[in-house]
Parts: sequence; C-alpha cells; structure tokens
Amino acid sequence: MCNKCNTSTLTRRKFIQTTTLAGAGLMVANSSNAAAADKKPQNIKTRGYAATDESGVLSPWEFERRPVGDDDVLINITFASICHSDIHQMKGHWGPQQYPQVPGHEIVGVVAAVGKNVSKFKVGDRAGVGCMVDTCLECEHCQGQGEQYCPETTFTYGYPEKTSPSGISQGGYSTNIVVRDHFAVHIPDHISDQEAAPLLCAGVTTYSPIMRADFKPGDKVGVAGIGGLGHMAIKLAVSKGAEVYAFTTSPDKVNDIIAFGAKEAIVVDDLSKLAPYNGTLDYMIATLPVHYNVAAYAATVKPYGFYTQVGMPERFELTMNAIGLSFSRANFNASLIGDMQETQDVVNYCAEHNVLPQIEVIKAEDVNKAWQNVVEKKARYRYVIDASTI
Amino acid sequence: MCNKCNTSTLTRRKFIQTTTLAGAGLMVANSSNAAAADKKPQNIKTRGYAATDESGVLSPWEFERRPVGDDDVLINITFASICHSDIHQMKGHWGPQQYPQVPGHEIVGVVAAVGKNVSKFKVGDRAGVGCMVDTCLECEHCQGQGEQYCPETTFTYGYPEKTSPSGISQGGYSTNIVVRDHFAVHIPDHISDQEAAPLLCAGVTTYSPIMRADFKPGDKVGVAGIGGLGHMAIKLAVSKGAEVYAFTTSPDKVNDIIAFGAKEAIVVDDLSKLAPYNGTLDYMIATLPVHYNVAAYAATVKPYGFYTQVGMPERFELTMNAIGLSFSRANFNASLIGDMQETQDVVNYCAEHNVLPQIEVIKAEDVNKAWQNVVEKKARYRYVIDASTI
Repeated sequence: MCNKCNTSTLTRRKFIQTTTLAGAGLMVANSSNAAAADKKPQNIKTRGYAATDESGVLSPWEFERRPVGDDDVLINITFASICHSDIHQMKGHWGPQQYPQVPGHEIVGVVAAVGKNVSKFKVGDRAGVGCMVDTCLECEHCQGQGEQYCPETTFTYGYPEKTSPSGISQGGYSTNIVVRDHFAVHIPDHISDQEAAPLLCAGVTTYSPIMRADFKPGDKVGVAGIGGLGHMAIKLAVSKGAEVYAFTTSPDKVNDIIAFGAKEAIVVDDLSKLAPYNGTLDYMIATLPVHYNVAAYAATVKPYGFYTQVGMPERFELTMNAIGLSFSRANFNASLIGDMQETQDVVNYCAEHNVLPQIEVIKAEDVNKAWQNVVEKKARYRYVIDASTI
Repeated sequence: MCNKCNTSTLTRRKFIQTTTLAGAGLMVANSSNAAAADKKPQNIKTRGYAATDESGVLSPWEFERRPVGDDDVLINITFASICHSDIHQMKGHWGPQQYPQVPGHEIVGVVAAVGKNVSKFKVGDRAGVGCMVDTCLECEHCQGQGEQYCPETTFTYGYPEKTSPSGISQGGYSTNIVVRDHFAVHIPDHISDQEAAPLLCAGVTTYSPIMRADFKPGDKVGVAGIGGLGHMAIKLAVSKGAEVYAFTTSPDKVNDIIAFGAKEAIVVDDLSKLAPYNGTLDYMIATLPVHYNVAAYAATVKPYGFYTQVGMPERFELTMNAIGLSFSRANFNASLIGDMQETQDVVNYCAEHNVLPQIEVIKAEDVNKAWQNVVEKKARYRYVIDASTI
C-alpha cells in the first residue's frame, strides 16, 4: 500500500471521533475541558488487543481508561505499531506480567479531550505517545537528564498505575488512551499518522544515541540488526552524514539496506564476516533484541570507540566476552529510548528530513501473525496496526 | 615479614646466580654473549611448579627453556607472585590447556645471560617479566597501540611457542626464564624484587586504565574487588589524587582499605549497599575475576561515565543487564594488562612514588595452599613465591 497516503487516515480519524468517543461514555467532541463537562468523571470505555497469559497470544478485550484528569489528554488512536519489546514483555521474557495486558508504545491518534490545565494540546490535534505515560516530573531526571530515568516512570504498558482501572498501564493496541499531556507529542502536518507511529519508540530509541554520538559527516557508522529499529538507525545515521555499514543476518534485506542509504550491507551468516571490519568504524549501534556475540560485533569499532546497545534481549541480559572486549577497547553502553524532548525532536526531524520508516499497515485481527513474522525476522520493517480495525 | 628488606633477596640472588646457573648447563656468569659462549646452544634446564591437569594442583617439574637467542635474555628468577589468572588458566576456566604447564606472569629476577644483539640489559641487571614474552613487533599494535593486542602475542604461559621445548610458553613459578629482551623491563634500585613482582601484572593492569582515565585530583573513583589488583588500584588512584571508594565483599578488609588511602570502604554484602553511591563516581575500575552484577556496580558512575573491567572471570564471560546499564548510561569497557612501555612505567612510577603492593612471601611448597586462599579471598594481598625455594 501507499504508506504516504493520508486519505484513509482522515476517514478513519473521523470515524473514531464519532464512534469510539460516543462509545467511550464521554462526550467531549465540542469541549476542550473534559473535567468541566462532567463533575463526576467516568472511566472511558476502550477496546484493545490484550495478552492473557505468557503464550503472548493477543485477543480482543474491552477495558476502561481513567477519566481525563486536569493534566490529561484523551487520544483516539488511529495507528499503533509493533515493537519487538511488545512481544518480549507479553511473553514474560522480561519478568512476570499482570494480564490481561494491552501492549503497544508507538501510538498516534487525535486528541479528543483535554483536562482543564492543558494548554499544550487542543481537541483535534494529532498527538503521539511513546514508551512513557507518567513520571514524577520533579526529580533531576525529569528536570533535564531524561524522564525515562525517573525512578517513578510509568512505562506505557504493564506498569503499576493507580489511576488505571486495571491497576496497570495499558498500551496502544487499542482505540484510545489517556495520558498526562507532558507525555504526548505533536505530530507535524507533513507526516502521516502511520509513518509517525514507529518514530515514538523505534525512532527515538535510535535517534537519541545517534544524535548524541560523536561522529562527523563522512565517518563510518555501523548498524547491527536491521529490523524496525535498525532500518531507522541506518536512515538517521545517513541523514547525519555518516557512511553506514549495516550488519544483518538476513540476505534478502541487502537491497533494502542499500536503498535505505547504507554504503554496505554485510550478511553476517558467520561471525568471521565481521573480521574485515574490525577496528574500522567510528561508532556502532546494535539493535539486536536477542543474545548475540557482543564482543565480536564491538570489535568493529575503532580502539576506544563507542558501541551502543538499544535492542533489549530476553531477561535484558547480554553476555559478553570480557577479554574480547578488552582487545577491541570498545566502550559498550546501552541506551534507553530517549527523553520527551527527544521524542518530539525525532518526530519533527523525521518529518522535516523525510526520514520515514518503511511500514506495512495491518488489521488488528492479523496482529498475532505479524508478531510471528517479527520473531521470524520477516517484518519489512514495521507493522502498523490500523486502530479502526480494533 | 618485612617486605621492604632486600637483604635476603640479595643473598638469594647470589645463591641463584651461582647454583641455578651452574645447574642450567650454561656458564655465562662472566659473559654478556651467550651465543658466543657455545656455538651449539643447548636448552636450559629449569625447575618449576606445574599443573598437570585441570585439578590445577601444582607439583615440582623439571623442564627446559630454549637456548638464549640473539635477542634474548636469560633471567634467573628470584620472586614470582600469584595472580588469580594463574588459577583460572590452570584449571581450564579459560579453555582447555596443555599440561604440564607452569603458571606465573609476575616475575622478577637477575639477568644471567644476554644474546649478542641485546643492549637493553647486561648480566647482573635486575629484570621483570609480565604477561607477554613475544609478539610480532611489527604490526600497528606493536608499533604503538600496545603489544598485548598483537594477533601473534605469546602470553607468558600456556601459549604455543615454537622455540619452547615443551611447545608452549612456560611461566614464572620456576627458577629461570628466557625471553626476548623487549619483553623484560628494568627494576629500579629503590624497589625490592618481591615488591616489584606484583607490578608486572596486577600493577600494570590497574595502572594502564587508571592513568588513561579522565579523572582529576579530588574526583571520586571507585574500585570494586579489593584483592591483588584492587589494592593496587586503590593505591594508584590515590596517588593520582582521587578520592577513592572501595567496594569489597570482605568486611575484614575494611581497615586495610582505609590504610591503603581510600576515603571509604563499602562492604557489599548485599547489592543494596551500592545504591547510595549510584550516579556519584567519576570513574570506576572493577577487578572482580568472577561473575557479578555488572550493571548494579556500573550504576555507581555518573551518567555517561566510564567503568573499566580488568578482572577476568571464568570463560572470560560477563553477563550484564542491558536495561540496567541503560539506566546508568555507563560506558563499560575492559582493559587488558598494558603495553610494554606501561609495564616499565608502572614499575618506575611505583618505585618513585612508593606505591607498593602488600605482599606475603611464601615457599614454593606452599603454593597450592596459597591458591586455595586466593580463591577463598584470604590473600592479603599478594602471595609472592620465593624462587630460591623451588
């Protein structure tokens, strides 16, 4: 499909505004102040796709969001895309979960109501939500270092959330979401909802370390793992002027990788394929969300260079060979999404520079098959759920 | 014992010069050119303590060294100290080994013969040998980046070595050693043999990253694991002006740690003891040669700070929690000993600044008990074998 066509989105948006909202028990289409509209705010009815156990199989679920608080926005979701993290968390790879749980932290939609204190958004604005929906907003992290590091961060799904009727945050594979306004970002006019959605996690997670990395135009940058995050990493590094070397285990991604702007696509069917690149790269970012030989990949950066892990494997654990790492003298670090300013920045940057994810829009009923494809490395490169099909 | 007393060393040195050499089948006491002394060079007889299988139990072994080549020096060993690496390698923790194998890469002695090309040393000089005994000397690593990174490095024991009669390099728990002159360093007058020995590995392994680390006087530096390497790391960081925070699992090391110059000794009997230090340290070096919670320790460095691993655990593997590391934003790296210039530098530096290891001299026959103590964290802080007892 043409993923730059917005026509169906607008139709869908209108559909959601008139139908979902009506079903949500909160008539706010003509109000910018939800609290004032109803002195006894009611929970908001929602439909989503939830996992009910560690099998991770998703099925339709009707649940409720909290009423729109004074600092909140209600967003009627148009598109939500699929991140490998969704799968890991629903399957308990990162620890035991409370079920039912609705995944999804790459969310775009239309603001349908705002609390009385909210000036950042008005009804009808397009808005995006990423991996966080609340923090303390007061600690040193929230005040500058990055809200994602706040000890009280509520991530978008599966985290304890007192205000949530289910007791935990519930994600974006659903028809609407209520979040504090600080955790929603504006979507610029010249990017579609469905192309903006993957930027909220895959985009910011690669944008943050790539923009912070100390490489200049013409420098050599490696990207390991070319999936949802990796293909954005290629495009972002290219947009920053890098000569990009993309390492993949999928031979049939080579043509795509070159089309994304990479200088070379290296098929790592054996670790020996990395050796010719040892000590050659100015920086590398690894998106692999599985266990792999970190030291072998890290050896491709120049001595004392930097290597950033953004993919999160099962149990979040990575095992590395310390003596291998000592030989390469690589500095290994891990980066966690980005802060809210960066989340807004990446959307603006990608819209402005036409750095867009390659997406495939799917119906909600196909989500389990899509997840299987992600696990089997068949995604090309981000599945985006059309929320009007939920 | 008084480990600053050199008297017994001199006696021992004289003893070795007259007895071991005589037994080595190479009379060079009055010659600076061994090759000239015998046109058909013969192997050099040696006694050592060798492991014979993965039990790692050491027993006396008579073996041979290669004849002194044109670029070689023969060193009659006076002292060799015990590194945890010796134990790991002999027990096969780092891969299968060839046996018999003599460990030891913290070696000091007296030059007893030199090859015809050697001008760096003369007979009678004191000399030290660390973790390497040969490299190609021509590659970019050998030409400046560090000989330890040369792909052809022969480490001091257990590495294939064509010139060795046993086929592998044999280490310093022995009466003598033959090495290329480049891989021996001078021992300054104002440091004893037995105190210099631990500097050849424990010293340089901590000296190299600490001197390269970007911290200023008054900055806070952490040291994790206070054994042979860790106690040197404390002293070296203190000598560079740092305020040192030492993390140990041994409560009975606290007084020693303060005596070494640390500002605080933190007993990590539970990982929660690390939490108050999270985000506070300008740099940290970890000497722990076992599996441990890397991310929990790394969280003590300031965001975007550096954390260097020098201890090498079983299989060289360290497993870390990637999301934990992402929260701390620490840059994790590993450092491998140091280059030959640094090896000379650390000996000079420690002699000049009186930065000396705390040692316990033992007889060779007690080596297995000493190893057991090292494993059980009972060493205080480096066992040094008196080679005259071999």
